[in-house]
Amino acid sequence: MPHAYAPTPAHKFSFGLWTVSNRGRDPFGDVVRPALPPVDAVKMLGDIGAWGVNLHDNDLVPIDATSSERDQIVKEFSRACKEHNIVVPMATVNLFYDPVFRDGAFTANDPRVRAYAVQKTLRAMDLGAELGAKIFVLWGGREGTETDACRRPDEAVKRLREAVNYLCEYSIDKKYGFRFAMESKPNEPRGDIYMASTGAYLGFIPTLDHPELVGVNPEVAHEHMAGLNFLHAIAQAWECGKLFHIDLNDQNPGRYDQDFRFGAANIKSAFFLVKFLEDVGYDGPRHFDAHAYRTEDYDGVKDFARGCMRTYLILKEKAQRWNADPEIAALVKETTGDVKVGKYSAAGRDTLLGHSFDRTAIASKGLQYEKLDQLTMEVLLGVR
Amino acid sequence: MPHAYAPTPAHKFSFGLWTVSNRGRDPFGDVVRPALPPVDAVKMLGDIGAWGVNLHDNDLVPIDATSSERDQIVKEFSRACKEHNIVVPMATVNLFYDPVFRDGAFTANDPRVRAYAVQKTLRAMDLGAELGAKIFVLWGGREGTETDACRRPDEAVKRLREAVNYLCEYSIDKKYGFRFAMESKPNEPRGDIYMASTGAYLGFIPTLDHPELVGVNPEVAHEHMAGLNFLHAIAQAWECGKLFHIDLNDQNPGRYDQDFRFGAANIKSAFFLVKFLEDVGYDGPRHFDAHAYRTEDYDGVKDFARGCMRTYLILKEKAQRWNADPEIAALVKETTGDVKVGKYSAAGRDTLLGHSFDRTAIASKGLQYEKLDQLTMEVLLGVR
Amino acid sequence: MPHAYAPTPAHKFSFGLWTVSNRGRDPFGDVVRPALPPVDAVKMLGDIGAWGVNLHDNDLVPIDATSSERDQIVKEFSRACKEHNIVVPMATVNLFYDPVFRDGAFTANDPRVRAYAVQKTLRAMDLGAELGAKIFVLWGGREGTETDACRRPDEAVKRLREAVNYLCEYSIDKKYGFRFAMESKPNEPRGDIYMASTGAYLGFIPTLDHPELVGVNPEVAHEHMAGLNFLHAIAQAWECGKLFHIDLNDQNPGRYDQDFRFGAANIKSAFFLVKFLEDVGYDGPRHFDAHAYRTEDYDGVKDFARGCMRTYLILKEKAQRWNADPEIAALVKETTGDVKVGKYSAAGRDTLLGHSFDRTAIASKGLQYEKLDQLTMEVLLGVR
Amino acid sequence: MPHAYAPTPAHKFSFGLWTVSNRGRDPFGDVVRPALPPVDAVKMLGDIGAWGVNLHDNDLVPIDATSSERDQIVKEFSRACKEHNIVVPMATVNLFYDPVFRDGAFTANDPRVRAYAVQKTLRAMDLGAELGAKIFVLWGGREGTETDACRRPDEAVKRLREAVNYLCEYSIDKKYGFRFAMESKPNEPRGDIYMASTGAYLGFIPTLDHPELVGVNPEVAHEHMAGLNFLHAIAQAWECGKLFHIDLNDQNPGRYDQDFRFGAANIKSAFFLVKFLEDVGYDGPRHFDAHAYRTEDYDGVKDFARGCMRTYLILKEKAQRWNADPEIAALVKETTGDVKVGKYSAAGRDTLLGHSFDRTAIASKGLQYEKLDQLTMEVLLGVR
Repeated sequence: MPHAYAPTPAHKFSFGLWTVSNRGRDPFGDVVRPALPPVDAVKMLGDIGAWGVNLHDNDLVPIDATSSERDQIVKEFSRACKEHNIVVPMATVNLFYDPVFRDGAFTANDPRVRAYAVQKTLRAMDLGAELGAKIFVLWGGREGTETDACRRPDEAVKRLREAVNYLCEYSIDKKYGFRFAMESKPNEPRGDIYMASTGAYLGFIPTLDHPELVGVNPEVAHEHMAGLNFLHAIAQAWECGKLFHIDLNDQNPGRYDQDFRFGAANIKSAFFLVKFLEDVGYDGPRHFDAHAYRTEDYDGVKDFARGCMRTYLILKEKAQRWNADPEIAALVKETTGDVKVGKYSAAGRDTLLGHSFDRTAIASKGLQYEKLDQLTMEVLLGVR
Repeated sequence: MPHAYAPTPAHKFSFGLWTVSNRGRDPFGDVVRPALPPVDAVKMLGDIGAWGVNLHDNDLVPIDATSSERDQIVKEFSRACKEHNIVVPMATVNLFYDPVFRDGAFTANDPRVRAYAVQKTLRAMDLGAELGAKIFVLWGGREGTETDACRRPDEAVKRLREAVNYLCEYSIDKKYGFRFAMESKPNEPRGDIYMASTGAYLGFIPTLDHPELVGVNPEVAHEHMAGLNFLHAIAQAWECGKLFHIDLNDQNPGRYDQDFRFGAANIKSAFFLVKFLEDVGYDGPRHFDAHAYRTEDYDGVKDFARGCMRTYLILKEKAQRWNADPEIAALVKETTGDVKVGKYSAAGRDTLLGHSFDRTAIASKGLQYEKLDQLTMEVLLGVR
Repeated sequence: MPHAYAPTPAHKFSFGLWTVSNRGRDPFGDVVRPALPPVDAVKMLGDIGAWGVNLHDNDLVPIDATSSERDQIVKEFSRACKEHNIVVPMATVNLFYDPVFRDGAFTANDPRVRAYAVQKTLRAMDLGAELGAKIFVLWGGREGTETDACRRPDEAVKRLREAVNYLCEYSIDKKYGFRFAMESKPNEPRGDIYMASTGAYLGFIPTLDHPELVGVNPEVAHEHMAGLNFLHAIAQAWECGKLFHIDLNDQNPGRYDQDFRFGAANIKSAFFLVKFLEDVGYDGPRHFDAHAYRTEDYDGVKDFARGCMRTYLILKEKAQRWNADPEIAALVKETTGDVKVGKYSAAGRDTLLGHSFDRTAIASKGLQYEKLDQLTMEVLLGVR
Repeated sequence: MPHAYAPTPAHKFSFGLWTVSNRGRDPFGDVVRPALPPVDAVKMLGDIGAWGVNLHDNDLVPIDATSSERDQIVKEFSRACKEHNIVVPMATVNLFYDPVFRDGAFTANDPRVRAYAVQKTLRAMDLGAELGAKIFVLWGGREGTETDACRRPDEAVKRLREAVNYLCEYSIDKKYGFRFAMESKPNEPRGDIYMASTGAYLGFIPTLDHPELVGVNPEVAHEHMAGLNFLHAIAQAWECGKLFHIDLNDQNPGRYDQDFRFGAANIKSAFFLVKFLEDVGYDGPRHFDAHAYRTEDYDGVKDFARGCMRTYLILKEKAQRWNADPEIAALVKETTGDVKVGKYSAAGRDTLLGHSFDRTAIASKGLQYEKLDQLTMEVLLGVR
């Protein structure tokens, strides 16, 4: 039975280099694990059956590396990826760690910072392209404020647009073929971060010069931090063709960014998420952006990473079981009605306006959602 | 001094009919105030210096009124508005009170409910047009779920789109000239509500048949419930031309929908909001969607409504003072840099890539945001 | 298999009369279910296998009932309880629904309201005693504020103490033998409610004249509203002997009071809760303070109520399985050390101060909590 | 005018050594300010007019310092304090930074960690006593869990009690005269922290061997993180004689620990807090546990620290103005009634039970809390 939940490359499970290499530093404590060199991280991912590794530029190449150091590092990393049968589906850029970004990157008040942020991103795109990535994630970790006295927020939107337009042109120019995936977060490390939810980016993208190149990278924890329903967010993104990537992890609402193992905080919402991705045929990477508890050594990191994939596969099986359950199917069967909304027409409008609805009759029949939800719970709990 | 904060029609202060008529019912208690007839509410608004009144269809016309009852009610209401010099800038539709909407309206699983919801909205548009409203707000109060087992959320998006497209065609057909303003809310009265944030609607609108007719109606309390920065939400909406209406009130984060008097929960965020609206020249209604504490009689309701307007005007004056403060101005002066991002070009790209940035130098100078924020506080506290 | 999860009286499952009779009214909508007479509610509870019913005074007896009406109602209700084999383990008093309580009850500014609240509670105690209840719950639904300008909060504490002391004396005087269980909530229906968490009451109780008579009635939803860990709250209460009653339901953090079916929002926290109650041998009622979705008719209410009990029993079985799992047991086995804290003594202190700890060695071994948590998840998901 | 808000020693303003020395490290970025030696921090505090400095053991003495290094450091620090006229009112112990504490300190599963934590605290008490501190704060930064599978939470309570009892005995034995102040926090850096609210500690303290030695150290941000009303928390602590210390800062609800400048997030709640402390005559330190934005250099840190004190003093003046305002005074005047609760007696009970209350009359008069709150706002905004 357990081997039924073993990951294969077809599952497209990927991990950020920064996730398995996370050393456990937090605001109140120091690192608890020794540094894990990128090539060792790749080996670990190969060992546990992952398919891909994603990275920020500086996860691999130190920010002050010379050109030749960089090339040597990339060469060794590529060799390790090949050896361990690991691909690089996505790359991104770190615009938050260095003190130069303390006021943001693309939206910072200092134009030198904005220019440097774009320069750094172009180079990160070069790196990602070299490693074969076709998705480029943009997370504006420090694009925000602690006090809104510092800039007009509409100005921040304009600056962000200028930068993203620039990056799109560069990708076209260099024929990199990137699809950009923008990642929202409501707060932390800034007091408030611009573009606080996936929806905000869905509204921003149509205002770009190349909206077709840009989509979103929703992260479970980031929507959960604001107590938002993640399933609803990805469904809207999917429905308008913008679900370019996804960050799977878990998080309790209303807290610091926890980045827990997938499914660890809320099984039910993780289930609906997996079910949705599988039902609609999402075929992008299943990327885990999480990290092990600080109580763990690297064996524990492996437990963590295996758990992410294993829980996904268990929930995928649950989704199949749910879909195949006849009692559940009967409860979710579409009801029919004699009047439809449909496309507007004069005739349809007159029919609609002339129709008499029996509100009381419609409202008096129970919809059996309590039963439906309880059956769902029992599928999840494995007693059905 | 106090008369400096007296409202005039030029301020465009409007109240929902449902706000001053709110009787104080809540989940744990019954009404505490007697019913206030619409014409009396209009008189009250006139007395306190408001400019406009907004309404749901059933705030004015009972859901089961006959056609002639409706006409009589509308006639009397219009007369009262004229007498008290009150306009009706916005109308909306109640798609949440009647039990028929317990599973939603435009997104309900029962197609009869969806059709009835559209029918009811068409009639509410007729009513709004008759009263002179040019803005039509859509708040999907019950478009959501307690369990996501009941429907696929992308199906809900499609149903919502079908309905809004229909309403747009009707407005065009009838030459009503409505601008639709969509209002988001994360939860309550449903466990989760679709289109949970203003951003979600900004992403939804470009997928409509007539995006130019549709904008947003952000509400302070609704973004605050999810702990989101309201200023950032309205700035994004404004920047892309979609701030069609606004609901002013106040709310502590992470709670039930409190609908407090404007400014009552967080003066600072109210200040940045007023400052933004005034700085950018927003010229729509300043609509208060709030209600008096349950401890109040109708004198207290007047205190509440006067307080909303008065706080707005006090904060408007603070914004002028902030803008005119030379020490503050010096702190927010734009820095300049020798390299810019700008439009992409091969030459610009090469210049940018070739530029060497001194990260340490840039990062070593303090940005004086603590001072800036403290000065802002002191303007707010009236000691500067 | 399913009958393994059938409730019996030994499980001590009780429901509030107000829970199965809930008619679905909420701040944005009217009732959706017809009134359910108390005797019918008792019959329903008997049908589904519950053991007890709890009630506020006015769930059974209207607030303005005459003495003879009251007696008749009580007689019929008692007969129904007997007929359906339902006991009344707990009674409470409604100090929140009537408009007289809009400013609170025991803490209201008007001394007449405070006196009336005590009078009403004494009569509710008479009623509870007559029905055989031995636990009396006090939930101060309206003891709070929208603005802290209205009273000093330490004055509110004093007023609350005066009232509870009075109630204790009455119980002693009348030989009712009540154990009082105080129920906290952070907000709703008031902006903020005094005694916001179970901990606050644990701090309040030792300041009473009869602390031995008073304990707590923690409610899952009420701690979850503030994002607090419910397990930690009840563990503290249990450890100091104050877990007199418990309200089981479910709730997503940072929202309005949802009162969902037990386990419906977060299976994992429900599991740890059930496991704790069973592990420590809590033998009080398992009381469900929740209500069915508004989409349901009374068949759905039955589904809801059955689901509460069934989920409890499923999780109880999971807890047994968890306790019996050897791999889990190995992971939670206590480590030992050569230096202990223990009771203070001069000798022990010197030993402790003289001991040299190898911090690095201690910190280098992983604690395997990721594996432990993943195994817990797999027990929950029924794949282990 | 501004000098009216200048701090003096009589105001008892203190700062943690860790606050002005905070270097701006956060989960997504590195330090942005150079290290500030403790003696320089003391000089800075002297320059800006602070009265006291508080410290964790390792803010001053590195964890691996030899005995002679420690003595040298303490000597220089004491000299600096004397020179700059700064006292050390409170000391505490760092039980969270070192990796040895990754599973907690007093509650860790490894008994060696628990013993080491007590040993380290005894030495921190020695240090505090040597520096003249009379208050010893205990913040269990890592006493918590990411998964409740790892230990029974009642066991954690027992371990915590054992440790605190030990510390009390040591203080008595050594005649240090410490008053211990326990500081709660709901989460971060752990998933959940035991003793999540001030109330929890108020419940814990009466179970100790020396409850008279132990009180609480409530922190604004820690209660606000859970969306709790801080005023209510400190009022309960004050009312039962347990407000031994206080941590002033600010925080938006439902987020990571922000530690903002006092008053920066919510002026109104800061006002009610200052008003309470001044009204009741709290005479302990006004300790600021906050830090400057990461955008600041050390000039900005001074701006930050000055702003904390200045805002306190502005709000203190507002409180005096509020208390002296006749219109406000009239609104908060106590109403009187003819029936009182009072002490229980047979006669009083009979009078109370026999009294007839006119609920409708009582409930029909508005309480004018909207007006009261608006006047409060206007005092705050400086327009009254």
